[in-house]
Amino acid sequence: MTFASSPLAIVVLAAGKGTRMKSDLHKVLHPIAGRPMLDHLLASARELAPERQVVIAGHGREQLEKALGTRAAIAVQEPQLGTGHAVQQAQAALAGFDGDVLILYGDVPFVRPETMRAMIARLHAEDAPAVVVLGFEPAEPLQYGRVLAHDDGRIAMMVEYKDATEEQRACRLCNSGLMAVKSADLFDLLAKVGNENSQGEYYLVDIVNIATLEGRACAVIVTDDPDEVGGINSRGELAEAEARWQHRRRALAMAEGVTLVAPETVYFAWDTQLGRDVTIEPNVVFGPGVTVADDVTIHAFSHLEGATLESGVAIGPFARLRPGAVLKRGSKVGNFVEMKQAVLGEGAKANHLTYLGNAEIGAGANIGAGTITCNYDGYFKHRTVIGERAFIGSNSALVAPVRIGADAIVAAGSAVTRDVADGELRLVRGEQLVKPGWADRFHDAMKKKKVEKDG
Amino acid sequence: MTFASSPLAIVVLAAGKGTRMKSDLHKVLHPIAGRPMLDHLLASARELAPERQVVIAGHGREQLEKALGTRAAIAVQEPQLGTGHAVQQAQAALAGFDGDVLILYGDVPFVRPETMRAMIARLHAEDAPAVVVLGFEPAEPLQYGRVLAHDDGRIAMMVEYKDATEEQRACRLCNSGLMAVKSADLFDLLAKVGNENSQGEYYLVDIVNIATLEGRACAVIVTDDPDEVGGINSRGELAEAEARWQHRRRALAMAEGVTLVAPETVYFAWDTQLGRDVTIEPNVVFGPGVTVADDVTIHAFSHLEGATLESGVAIGPFARLRPGAVLKRGSKVGNFVEMKQAVLGEGAKANHLTYLGNAEIGAGANIGAGTITCNYDGYFKHRTVIGERAFIGSNSALVAPVRIGADAIVAAGSAVTRDVADGELRLVRGEQLVKPGWADRFHDAMKKKKVEKDG
Amino acid sequence: MTFASSPLAIVVLAAGKGTRMKSDLHKVLHPIAGRPMLDHLLASARELAPERQVVIAGHGREQLEKALGTRAAIAVQEPQLGTGHAVQQAQAALAGFDGDVLILYGDVPFVRPETMRAMIARLHAEDAPAVVVLGFEPAEPLQYGRVLAHDDGRIAMMVEYKDATEEQRACRLCNSGLMAVKSADLFDLLAKVGNENSQGEYYLVDIVNIATLEGRACAVIVTDDPDEVGGINSRGELAEAEARWQHRRRALAMAEGVTLVAPETVYFAWDTQLGRDVTIEPNVVFGPGVTVADDVTIHAFSHLEGATLESGVAIGPFARLRPGAVLKRGSKVGNFVEMKQAVLGEGAKANHLTYLGNAEIGAGANIGAGTITCNYDGYFKHRTVIGERAFIGSNSALVAPVRIGADAIVAAGSAVTRDVADGELRLVRGEQLVKPGWADRFHDAMKKKKVEKDG
Repeated sequence: MTFASSPLAIVVLAAGKGTRMKSDLHKVLHPIAGRPMLDHLLASARELAPERQVVIAGHGREQLEKALGTRAAIAVQEPQLGTGHAVQQAQAALAGFDGDVLILYGDVPFVRPETMRAMIARLHAEDAPAVVVLGFEPAEPLQYGRVLAHDDGRIAMMVEYKDATEEQRACRLCNSGLMAVKSADLFDLLAKVGNENSQGEYYLVDIVNIATLEGRACAVIVTDDPDEVGGINSRGELAEAEARWQHRRRALAMAEGVTLVAPETVYFAWDTQLGRDVTIEPNVVFGPGVTVADDVTIHAFSHLEGATLESGVAIGPFARLRPGAVLKRGSKVGNFVEMKQAVLGEGAKANHLTYLGNAEIGAGANIGAGTITCNYDGYFKHRTVIGERAFIGSNSALVAPVRIGADAIVAAGSAVTRDVADGELRLVRGEQLVKPGWADRFHDAMKKKKVEKDG
Repeated sequence: MTFASSPLAIVVLAAGKGTRMKSDLHKVLHPIAGRPMLDHLLASARELAPERQVVIAGHGREQLEKALGTRAAIAVQEPQLGTGHAVQQAQAALAGFDGDVLILYGDVPFVRPETMRAMIARLHAEDAPAVVVLGFEPAEPLQYGRVLAHDDGRIAMMVEYKDATEEQRACRLCNSGLMAVKSADLFDLLAKVGNENSQGEYYLVDIVNIATLEGRACAVIVTDDPDEVGGINSRGELAEAEARWQHRRRALAMAEGVTLVAPETVYFAWDTQLGRDVTIEPNVVFGPGVTVADDVTIHAFSHLEGATLESGVAIGPFARLRPGAVLKRGSKVGNFVEMKQAVLGEGAKANHLTYLGNAEIGAGANIGAGTITCNYDGYFKHRTVIGERAFIGSNSALVAPVRIGADAIVAAGSAVTRDVADGELRLVRGEQLVKPGWADRFHDAMKKKKVEKDG
Repeated sequence: MTFASSPLAIVVLAAGKGTRMKSDLHKVLHPIAGRPMLDHLLASARELAPERQVVIAGHGREQLEKALGTRAAIAVQEPQLGTGHAVQQAQAALAGFDGDVLILYGDVPFVRPETMRAMIARLHAEDAPAVVVLGFEPAEPLQYGRVLAHDDGRIAMMVEYKDATEEQRACRLCNSGLMAVKSADLFDLLAKVGNENSQGEYYLVDIVNIATLEGRACAVIVTDDPDEVGGINSRGELAEAEARWQHRRRALAMAEGVTLVAPETVYFAWDTQLGRDVTIEPNVVFGPGVTVADDVTIHAFSHLEGATLESGVAIGPFARLRPGAVLKRGSKVGNFVEMKQAVLGEGAKANHLTYLGNAEIGAGANIGAGTITCNYDGYFKHRTVIGERAFIGSNSALVAPVRIGADAIVAAGSAVTRDVADGELRLVRGEQLVKPGWADRFHDAMKKKKVEKDG
């Protein structure tokens, strides 16, 4: 077993048009659980510590370049002449590389690292196969290409469905398209692939039959989870992949001590972190970047993204936590409350109809219903700082930059534009103007007008 | 094939009591996808351009009259003596009509136009059947009446389940109740139907056996989708029909280039229109009258009705768009925002806790958190007009009728009752009243009082 | 049949650790449909009017004591030496009791009263069995203990899965663990149970084999619903039990005349009461204590707890009704509105972005958008009373305690701190300060600053 020290390169095919998606967004950039499918795949591959990563791009390659940055090399396939031709485009990016090459697909994002490892291990087995193919046995083999193999996994022949005999079609072992090949063999074999077929394309799968004809062994290993090699070619398949991902994530959450009253209504992001004895009511949506500590209750109809909830926190129903929301131990956020770039101190409360943006709220403070931090002047964002145990009366507007002292009180309905000192009362309010009987006269006049208007 | 020029009449049976619905609302007026089931049926029938439409009403006919207006003639069946008797009531409304009659059921709303056309076509086939019956083959034939037919579709006999032999019951072809008959035959045959049965009723199905006994051919055609003839007799069946409708609509949306992160949580209305590269997050509900252009994002927990979203718009989470909401290109509506009879200009934003009613907001305007257009004085609605690039400070009340100029600024917390000119600042605010130490004294007094009260 | 006059005691086993729940909350206190599972079980048992109720507690018994109060006696099992040992701990609590004992499990909460009654009835049948066992036939018998019984229900032998022969395992009748025994027999038999097994525990099931060996008849009765004896040992099983409960409750609601547009998205509490012709849109969550009268519409995304809705009421979308919310006949609560300890009078409306707490609103009153009752001063709650037909202008803060008279008007944006008389207009507002051209100058300055800052 020399493979532990063999360097690894991955080649990800992502040049296809993705026509069935009917989208201007590149197919492999469509997100699942809040993360582009290509990133799911690259993250799994990274667990094998590849030395090189090459993404083959064609249609929409500008989008890929922007999304990948320096995370992977991009090789351009132009025009697109088939999967074999696609892999050939990696040759320059792999110049000087001598090791194993794992061929993956950008629209097959959920292949597990352990499956990738098993393919590499098989490549280094004693019989030293030239190519290792990942096979799968779907419930419905449909028109997938078949892998005709001996019991020991040695491949007799790869056959496309349309070229297969009835007997060959009865074989249920299908070709996922994923392969492991040593770099030394890969481009040699690819150079021998021809395009004498109805599409005039160069097919990657042909390297198996070519190697076999040359007397080299090729091998198949079979995944025990056919779902992991499922390709995503339409929005329907995208939704199905999302549903499978969510189903697994929910089961994991429950197994780890999270109560999901209605698991099928809770949507996690790829990186959601959840503590023990967290209770999540129906209809909660997590965007990326959320961390939830122990003993937290998330009531129904809550939406969280980029938020940190310490232990003992309760939010919702109808809470909206945006990036940079930090809820300290035991704090509470109630209904129709939005937080963004704001810290709510230990035990502090913002229970109703409130917007807290670019704000820091001290421990034990009470933010009244309808409070709004006016953090934006149309050009810049400004900061609101509220002291410990301060009491912000309902319907107040805190015009940032502004600082409210500890134990201070802002009277209901105040628009506060200047700092409030510790222990001070700030009251911003017009005179109570009283007009006795005015309302009665108004009602009379309006009723008359309404009668005139209606009839 | 003379039938293209044959005039068509449809007769819709809707006289039943609908007891199992346990509702004061007429059964056929219960909505599916936001539209009464009767309207779904009539819309499908209209694709065949019927010359006459007759609805047979009995129980709750006032509701039907109100709902139908002049869209169909109503014939009253009183008392209700069976389906044959029901169809007979159409005779007056069909006086002078000579053509094909299609008999439909108000509680079987999802028969497809192509199925209706196939029934009419069969009526005009060479063997000129007296009656064409629509048959179906359900997974569980249960106690449906059976259609005993030859391989060519010629009917040997219609038999009720309770009168059927074991052998006859083994036949899986069931009678949907839908029929096509030439008007010349229909009332002739109906006149011969008797009521010598345990219920003392006149059954429509008997016209088939009567015609057959008279030596006339009758024919059955079989739907390839048994669901389309499913009757709705309870709220459970109503919910199932809704679920089937939604399932089909979601699949169609995805096929046309809409991303549904969680398809099973999105509810469309019968007339929802969606562009390409629209993304809809979990838990979105569409009422009737919504049009969504390309590249629109609808975040979770949004509710739309009668709204128009131009391209590049983003709404939600927790957005509520009501009839007359128009979001121009690239505008944004955020959380806990309601719009009704209001136009949000190109690139304008209303991101938090806002009510915009009877309003027109200019391009590029910024509506601060907690802004409310006070459009109602208890008697009349008034209009708010906001200029381009205007900035409405948070927690402002705009008391309509009022006009805010272009580039104008309304200071946070202002109740604006008079027009604001272009480029003007409007500030409506009381004095900042400061009481140093007041809050500290208040806290001391209250803590003392609390101790007294609690102990 | 003497059993009608036989006194009954129930013994509920709840001493287990519930390790798989991974929770600090006692397993039997985890709620389903908003009610601890133990309470579901006790409520069912109470229908048999037991004379004594004993809960066997071990781990986390302080939580059980607190939750049960005086509703049941608690007997402590410490250490935990098996189910037989657990039941023995009830001996003191049953001192002087002579009657039937029903042995239940705190984590098997949904056994129906009729099943319990059938067990007791069987105990009093002519053949006078010493023990009655409740058996069930699951789809997958897995590793449950088997009940080997004659056709007449007489038990030949109870056998644990691990001790069973292949032939015995083929028997699909499993032991639920629930038993009925006369108190006179119970402790006699338990005293003979040994702990010579691999776990060193005393198993309750052994009393059956001991009685049988002594020549006493024992009998099994079989539930027709295997789900009712399903134990809840993990959060996954908790979620499944919740889902089954909700599924049944939704079907019942629909059967009784409630429209559920999307039944699978509506979550009821154990005590939700619903009238006829109630329509519930998708995504509605009921906490405990809600009563809904006839002809009520609950729009999407609403959350209700402890609320009373009279007939003709409409709420939502995005309504949040909390305990003590009472909506009188024909009143309306719209989007982003919260009510708590508040009565909304006949035909009154609170349609947008409002918080009503500790308030009484008269018939026909109109509560404008953004109205907030400031009911809390940081220490005490105070009351707001609004008269009939009063009109509260938008964005008003009503600082309690305060009283607004009948037909009174509060101008938009007012913070009202003193009572308003009947027919009076109250206007609390600063001067309209106008600064022509100020906004234009501000925009110029800021644009310049932004350019400088951005570089």
